[in-house]
Amino acid sequence: MQQSGKFITVEGIEGAGKSTAVKYIQEYFLKKGKEIIVTREPGGTPVAEEIRHLLLNPHTKEIIDPKAELLLMFASRAQHIAGVISPALSAGKWVICDRFVDATYAYQSAGRGLDAKWIALLEKFVVNNLSPTLTILLDIEPALGLARSRRRGPQDRFEKETVEFFEKVRHAYLELAQQHKKRFAIINAAESLSAVQTQLQDALHEL
Amino acid sequence: MQQSGKFITVEGIEGAGKSTAVKYIQEYFLKKGKEIIVTREPGGTPVAEEIRHLLLNPHTKEIIDPKAELLLMFASRAQHIAGVISPALSAGKWVICDRFVDATYAYQSAGRGLDAKWIALLEKFVVNNLSPTLTILLDIEPALGLARSRRRGPQDRFEKETVEFFEKVRHAYLELAQQHKKRFAIINAAESLSAVQTQLQDALHEL
Repeated sequence: MQQSGKFITVEGIEGAGKSTAVKYIQEYFLKKGKEIIVTREPGGTPVAEEIRHLLLNPHTKEIIDPKAELLLMFASRAQHIAGVISPALSAGKWVICDRFVDATYAYQSAGRGLDAKWIALLEKFVVNNLSPTLTILLDIEPALGLARSRRRGPQDRFEKETVEFFEKVRHAYLELAQQHKKRFAIINAAESLSAVQTQLQDALHEL
Repeated sequence: MQQSGKFITVEGIEGAGKSTAVKYIQEYFLKKGKEIIVTREPGGTPVAEEIRHLLLNPHTKEIIDPKAELLLMFASRAQHIAGVISPALSAGKWVICDRFVDATYAYQSAGRGLDAKWIALLEKFVVNNLSPTLTILLDIEPALGLARSRRRGPQDRFEKETVEFFEKVRHAYLELAQQHKKRFAIINAAESLSAVQTQLQDALHEL
């Protein structure tokens, strides 16, 4: 696919400060005169947001099968890419996305225990050669992140998971960052807001 | 998986008479003292029924991407197998399912034009070695089937498709029946109700 805009993803566990970082990145590039789309996964289109609701709803009357969870993530992603991300990038816009494929490796493979080979196949089917230019990984101790996110209000289906689950997710994110050093910037999200913003600025400056 | 019950699927395009056939099959085996579960796809569990609504809703505000449609079908199926089909078969129950994987080959590959190799991969991931013992294919001319289904009331997102779409779907079903002769029984669904029931009886008798 012809990509004239740039695609930036923001990753991290619950309470790492993704929303704040996304806003900071948006303003940083707005000041530089870029046309920006801010979006998120799962979700990003009306149908994909309905899939998000199915995935995050903590009151689901049955246990969601891990394979069903994985397929819902990629269904939402297919809809999101076709309806939002690809058209925006083709039109030269910059897309900032709160979570993307890395989250699926971290949560559904490391977290849920599904074989990563299936995620790689689904990635090939759905995402093809659309890769972020830059992935910001907000790294934080799960105990600290969860304490932050629990202060925010009611928990979704993922936020109800154990610290052990998020330890696995965090470890997988750090491994992905090791495997794709050029694409990833790791931010120490345990630091103060201004220190996080300085780190973000450094990462964005390189773009 | 240990399969002690039998798994019977009913396939066919809109208006072929699947619901009537399912009821007939259910009564046929109830009379023989079998414990029967009747279910359907997409759907069959609370979450899978929510996915069904996303798939069939004719008022969706955006075009559903064919890949998203395929992944939603398999997400619903994963949930359905884990929550209903596998436990029932393991408990020795007989499961009659209105549509299963054959429908995905017919609709999403032949109908929507997706490469069947992706469906085969998803089948391996989700369905694994769970194969119907018997698949009843209710075969009918699309023009006749659609006329029947349109008399029934409001059309869902698939029923709004063209006759050409259903010609492709029907052709794919007949090809699948050719490829899996032992598993399939083709019923001429254009005949009278009693003639269809006689054909069904012959197919069920062989089981």
